[in-house]
Amino acid sequence: MPTPEPLAHPSRDEIELAAVLHALSDPVRLMMVRGLAGALEGRSCGSFDVPVTKSTCTHHFKILREAGVIRQRQEGTKRVNTLREDDLEVRFPGLLATILQAAEDQSLVSTQA
Amino acid sequence: MPTPEPLAHPSRDEIELAAVLHALSDPVRLMMVRGLAGALEGRSCGSFDVPVTKSTCTHHFKILREAGVIRQRQEGTKRVNTLREDDLEVRFPGLLATILQAAEDQSLVSTQA
Repeated sequence: MPTPEPLAHPSRDEIELAAVLHALSDPVRLMMVRGLAGALEGRSCGSFDVPVTKSTCTHHFKILREAGVIRQRQEGTKRVNTLREDDLEVRFPGLLATILQAAEDQSLVSTQA
Repeated sequence: MPTPEPLAHPSRDEIELAAVLHALSDPVRLMMVRGLAGALEGRSCGSFDVPVTKSTCTHHFKILREAGVIRQRQEGTKRVNTLREDDLEVRFPGLLATILQAAEDQSLVSTQA
């Protein structure tokens, strides 16, 4: 069985604001990150109810990982994703929480509309 | 003299989180927005010391305007840009301030490095 490719993660200090904002600037990725918030054990791609194919899902998680927003670990054939809340909070205090709150506010308004 | 094309702006309620994050996910645009913060009278493209051509500068301001981050008004041959701080604060409380703070923190660290 081939070894899965190693999953590169930026260190906390290497996390760049522009990359984080880019990673969160896509509605599907924003939805995924909201789904990961509070899921301490992590979630795999398949556990998300998002309107994209599995390969697109994988691509989105790669962008989130490379930006330093999530951590991915291999468990057998699955990749489990967790949010790097602590790293992001130290690097950019309040940023993730504010963006998640904004996403929630916007989605509440769209639901009411 | 040809009439300049009208400058379309989203209304406050039409401002989308993903578009705002995308607009701010570019280091040059982030630098421009930092330069507009506190410049109540607004600033024109030429007043920014950014490492891009005038046409690229115009393009960046268009993206910021269409996302609802800035307002542009025509004054003679110049376009004057102001930050839509109040609209953004009502739409997504704390978001702009948190991102500007994160940009400042990051730039302080890069300067020290």
